[in-house]
Amino acid sequence: MATTPPARSPELRKDPVTNRWVIFSPARAKRPSDFKSKSPENPNNNSSSCPFCIGNEHQCAPEIFRVPPDPNWKLRVIENLYPALSRKLDHPNGQNDDSSSELSGLGRVVPGFGFHDVVIETPVHSVQLSDLDPSEIGDVLIAYKRRIEQIKQFDSIKYIQVFKNHGASAGASMSHSHSQMLSLPIVPASVTTRLNSMKEHFHQTGKCILCQVQSKDLLINETSHFFSIAPYASSFPFEIWIIPRDHSSHFDELDNKKAVDLGGLLKLILKKMALQLNNPPFNFMIHTSPIQVTDSELPYSHWFLQIIPQLTGVGGFELGSGCYINPVFPDDAAKILRELNVPI
Amino acid sequence: MATTPPARSPELRKDPVTNRWVIFSPARAKRPSDFKSKSPENPNNNSSSCPFCIGNEHQCAPEIFRVPPDPNWKLRVIENLYPALSRKLDHPNGQNDDSSSELSGLGRVVPGFGFHDVVIETPVHSVQLSDLDPSEIGDVLIAYKRRIEQIKQFDSIKYIQVFKNHGASAGASMSHSHSQMLSLPIVPASVTTRLNSMKEHFHQTGKCILCQVQSKDLLINETSHFFSIAPYASSFPFEIWIIPRDHSSHFDELDNKKAVDLGGLLKLILKKMALQLNNPPFNFMIHTSPIQVTDSELPYSHWFLQIIPQLTGVGGFELGSGCYINPVFPDDAAKILRELNVPI
Repeated sequence: MATTPPARSPELRKDPVTNRWVIFSPARAKRPSDFKSKSPENPNNNSSSCPFCIGNEHQCAPEIFRVPPDPNWKLRVIENLYPALSRKLDHPNGQNDDSSSELSGLGRVVPGFGFHDVVIETPVHSVQLSDLDPSEIGDVLIAYKRRIEQIKQFDSIKYIQVFKNHGASAGASMSHSHSQMLSLPIVPASVTTRLNSMKEHFHQTGKCILCQVQSKDLLINETSHFFSIAPYASSFPFEIWIIPRDHSSHFDELDNKKAVDLGGLLKLILKKMALQLNNPPFNFMIHTSPIQVTDSELPYSHWFLQIIPQLTGVGGFELGSGCYINPVFPDDAAKILRELNVPI
Repeated sequence: MATTPPARSPELRKDPVTNRWVIFSPARAKRPSDFKSKSPENPNNNSSSCPFCIGNEHQCAPEIFRVPPDPNWKLRVIENLYPALSRKLDHPNGQNDDSSSELSGLGRVVPGFGFHDVVIETPVHSVQLSDLDPSEIGDVLIAYKRRIEQIKQFDSIKYIQVFKNHGASAGASMSHSHSQMLSLPIVPASVTTRLNSMKEHFHQTGKCILCQVQSKDLLINETSHFFSIAPYASSFPFEIWIIPRDHSSHFDELDNKKAVDLGGLLKLILKKMALQLNNPPFNFMIHTSPIQVTDSELPYSHWFLQIIPQLTGVGGFELGSGCYINPVFPDDAAKILRELNVPI
């Protein structure tokens, strides 16, 4: 057994992208390599009752498109049966932002118009996203892009949040591998904060922060078009960002070739995370720029994909302050994941 | 059985205090009165091994003070055995804010100097905070105040987060009733956001938002010096704020008389929450102003206590966008809690 190195002193780091302070407090914890999920995601292999399985399409809400467009589909984009927003509400055309939202005596309010879609990533119940080939994961990413391009036609949609919940405790109500897209009539405050924070860095240095962020100590793996890091001020232990090498403000600029490249890196990272951390529940989120805003208006914005394995809980400190306590320094997390070998 | 009223349409509301958008989406859910905790907090009555019980003081980290100061104490303030920050680190005197934090190539960094204290609210293992008399809860609140006054002497502490985790899934690692105080060398970004949001409202209207917020529909209960509401843009179902009637920027302005009054209202609200929601795990947080800043510098800031019962989980959408999806409109939550009778 390796000996435990002396504990590092706690420190606070401020993330230049999210603008959030994080407390790194390794003394509370075991060795970084001892972090494992206590509630690994348990696959449910009962496909007879699963509406996402091939053959059960009639149990689902309406389909938006499928790939390929025939009965032997490999992925489907459908409406969420329990949408958080309504695609049937009247919506004022174009101007649902802060400046035009209705101000009640107590705060601003906007009608709940929007789209809540589900991307079924595979026809087979027991297959997980990381089991797919890089090109098949690329197809899922291109499906996100195709749906974003459709939704862009609606002037009143301001931001599209693409995300994946894997495992019940990470918010997944269905065990069949899927991701979701929630198209909002507002730009979330954390997106505005991120853009302002990146803009400030750009104005101070003349450079995009994510074009500069490559650090040998934080690097996990890289490919022709992408690199993955444990970010300098990770809010969560073993949090991972996958970042395009080329400066790009919008996820939907992804082309087919880069989608396959990203698919390969995402597969590798998810396999490493499952092996090192005992198949933890996880979330991934695509952080992109508001739609209806062009690249040239956002020279400081650079999209990325954030992966958060669920290893720790959140309590009153985090809810109250918005700061997180992270027991694992990101260079320790990056080293462990970088040096891990997984059979692909 | 009451009939189910027609579902309300979803809408987005922006909280003028937190500056966060919340999606109200009742169609996803059952009736508001059917919300119950699925994982009620299970009290652990094994006090023989609990270091927080009276008689086991030697198993704890050092004591800061006890009330009353004799062997038959009713509450104790002690150091956290596993502190997130270190009281032993060297700390630059006074200037640990953004402007003077060290900027590494990747972001700002500050040494992890700070205090992480625990308030043991009762000597008896099986007693919960809501079981105490109003004057005993008042004593707990006055203990927070006394500890804040001690910590104020350290120029490098900028903000003190007081919070309580009740139940393991809400972050409590000990079942014996306690709360925590984390004293930070920085002002968290969400505190800055809250102050800026309240300042904007003050400049637009000439009034403090929390002095104006009283609404008949959102009111739960009120006392001489405090009122409780379900906030207009609650992030969580059955979220509750307790707000002092008199404008006050800092929690530590609380006097003994108001502490007993607040103790009575907090007891009533916690009892109602336990009865209506099946004894849920919960967090409460005191949202106050940075220390070292005087009232006259913050005419727009008004402290409050926020209570969040744990009824729903958080997934990739919330982690990605910082927006929450709330299935219960606050006027529905307020009506249910307002009309509930509990034996006190």
